[in-house]
Amino acid sequence: MDGFVAAGRSGGIKPSGALDMAIVATADATPVAAAGVFTSNRMTAAPVVVSRGHLARSGGLAAAVICNSGNANAATGRQGLADAERMCELTAESLGGHSDHVLVCSTGLIGFELPMDRIAAGIPKVVAARHPAGGSEAAVAMMTTDTVAKEVTVAGGGFTVGGIAKGAAMLEPNMATMLAVLTTDAAAEPAALEEVLRAAVAGSFNRLTVDGAQSTNDTVLLLANGAAGRAPDGALAAALAEACGDLALQMADDAEGSTKTVLLRVTGAASDAEAAKAARDCANCQLVKCSWFGEDPYWGRIASEFGAAGVAFDPERITIAYGNHTVYAEGRPARPDADALAAYMRQRRLHLNVDLGIGDGQAEIVTVDLSHGYVDENSKTS
Amino acid sequence: MDGFVAAGRSGGIKPSGALDMAIVATADATPVAAAGVFTSNRMTAAPVVVSRGHLARSGGLAAAVICNSGNANAATGRQGLADAERMCELTAESLGGHSDHVLVCSTGLIGFELPMDRIAAGIPKVVAARHPAGGSEAAVAMMTTDTVAKEVTVAGGGFTVGGIAKGAAMLEPNMATMLAVLTTDAAAEPAALEEVLRAAVAGSFNRLTVDGAQSTNDTVLLLANGAAGRAPDGALAAALAEACGDLALQMADDAEGSTKTVLLRVTGAASDAEAAKAARDCANCQLVKCSWFGEDPYWGRIASEFGAAGVAFDPERITIAYGNHTVYAEGRPARPDADALAAYMRQRRLHLNVDLGIGDGQAEIVTVDLSHGYVDENSKTS
Repeated sequence: MDGFVAAGRSGGIKPSGALDMAIVATADATPVAAAGVFTSNRMTAAPVVVSRGHLARSGGLAAAVICNSGNANAATGRQGLADAERMCELTAESLGGHSDHVLVCSTGLIGFELPMDRIAAGIPKVVAARHPAGGSEAAVAMMTTDTVAKEVTVAGGGFTVGGIAKGAAMLEPNMATMLAVLTTDAAAEPAALEEVLRAAVAGSFNRLTVDGAQSTNDTVLLLANGAAGRAPDGALAAALAEACGDLALQMADDAEGSTKTVLLRVTGAASDAEAAKAARDCANCQLVKCSWFGEDPYWGRIASEFGAAGVAFDPERITIAYGNHTVYAEGRPARPDADALAAYMRQRRLHLNVDLGIGDGQAEIVTVDLSHGYVDENSKTS
Repeated sequence: MDGFVAAGRSGGIKPSGALDMAIVATADATPVAAAGVFTSNRMTAAPVVVSRGHLARSGGLAAAVICNSGNANAATGRQGLADAERMCELTAESLGGHSDHVLVCSTGLIGFELPMDRIAAGIPKVVAARHPAGGSEAAVAMMTTDTVAKEVTVAGGGFTVGGIAKGAAMLEPNMATMLAVLTTDAAAEPAALEEVLRAAVAGSFNRLTVDGAQSTNDTVLLLANGAAGRAPDGALAAALAEACGDLALQMADDAEGSTKTVLLRVTGAASDAEAAKAARDCANCQLVKCSWFGEDPYWGRIASEFGAAGVAFDPERITIAYGNHTVYAEGRPARPDADALAAYMRQRRLHLNVDLGIGDGQAEIVTVDLSHGYVDENSKTS
């Protein structure tokens, strides 16, 4: 989007020679307001530690984000921290600026040190290649097990929000860490920017789960250059929520081996928190995930998962429906139109609605099935 | 074992015609001390509700356990409760006794009513077929997705404990509910029997997890006929723990589609509870399970899972080893002998030892990998 530049290049980190280095920067390389939301995994990857530190030291200002794929620089100890800092220094040297104004993201295999000789050679090249239309190639260079690049642009209410992302989920992502770099023209103090970013992440990436595992590297960054001349307000919040929600759905549709994207909506729980707990347990249940892969509306396993979730529950009150097809109600299997239900289950996106009949609590979560493709992807030797 | 009889027959519940009805009873059909441990799933299956009620009404006395496979009689509402009661009544009529002294177990698909005409015809036949050596055929008749029957006999310290079981786990079992029926010659009050049974279950079935899902039907029953003339003591506890532990390992080795049984031992945690929490999270992580299927000692994902478990954690202090092969220590990958490690990973049973380096807390858990066979088993249309 206007006022930002980007690029993607191959630095030779991936054996395949595919793009593996990306940069997103302000057009004139000056620092602007910035905010970040990071993994809560205590096995925190080095780039997360370094980016958090830079945002703290700079008071929430950044001029650029440097990314690599193919290696997560996680579980790499002191050497990993030094390498992440060095990536920022080299980027700052090429851009002309201070390394505290550079943020860094890495994604790929965990537990291996970065090939710093290749990265040091690649950074000046990717920085020099930056241009106004470079977002798409930067999105490609962030990919690991992704099969398509993820991009979004939302304009409305006087603001524009652009974003690129990779991976499958936030807080509960799969092997391939979730990263997103967003830009906007809002004129924001860093604290206000972080507040609106946290809200958008809570309603999008944090409601997506692929396999219940949480990455060491998950990062969502937002840079705001102020070109719109307006401070953050409800319109920015809406645009950012739409952008993040769109990217989260793109991730689910491209999740490792997935053949179904399931939008699970839980209503009638004792509280919103209980609805969210039960929804997440059901979404992460291997048995339920396999039933989706088999296009099987297996209500018994879904009811069982809600019964085991530790929330207020009455077997006589739960109602389970796929789309408009009720499959379980009033303590016994319903009698849906079998052909219509089978046709519904063949769709890529399924709406699963579970009402607990207890109270007013509700929650939504986006998840995917568990397929042979997932097993293949994650049983390959690292 | 002496003083008990059993049988397995086909009642026509399974379309395949395989054995699907089983009975275990005292030899003379008189009630003896009995205890049960049941699922904590709130979507409680009808046979669990009925068996609990019978133990309460009889003051912990039972003469027989009637089982069927092929249908779990779960999520079946009031009709399911009536059907489970009817199974006990029919068994009591055939045996000559009171239905409160009959316990009932069902396993198989959830959410379908029992074919009571077939079951009513089958009960007199299986009851009439009971004989002293019938344990093996009863174990076969309890099987669902099991590929082998599970039996155990332990003698020692003046007691004998016998048992048959089916399924894959307790509290976190897979689709095929975990059931175990144990017998002993101890002379016990029901309360003392329940105490020793709970301890044995806690140290065996409750430390086994296949996929984190909890069944509606999980049941462990113990009948004690008093023939040994001795009250429960440490020797009975040891024999019962050995019997339950042996059956739990048999379940892991036969878990749906599994190719690896992993004995995960966590030490050095801040507390035993934190060790158990982290061990369970790691054992249930789809990514880690897939790495075992691929015979890949992927330390990075294991370290990440412990970092995400919400327990006291320091990336510099965690040590990860497969058998004697240390793969991660002191904040960085170790350098194990690659060939020896690869040979180790090819074994069916793997010992994974994780030391957190924080405190004295420890826990053990038994789990399995995630394979194509599991996906196949659980994506078939019900």
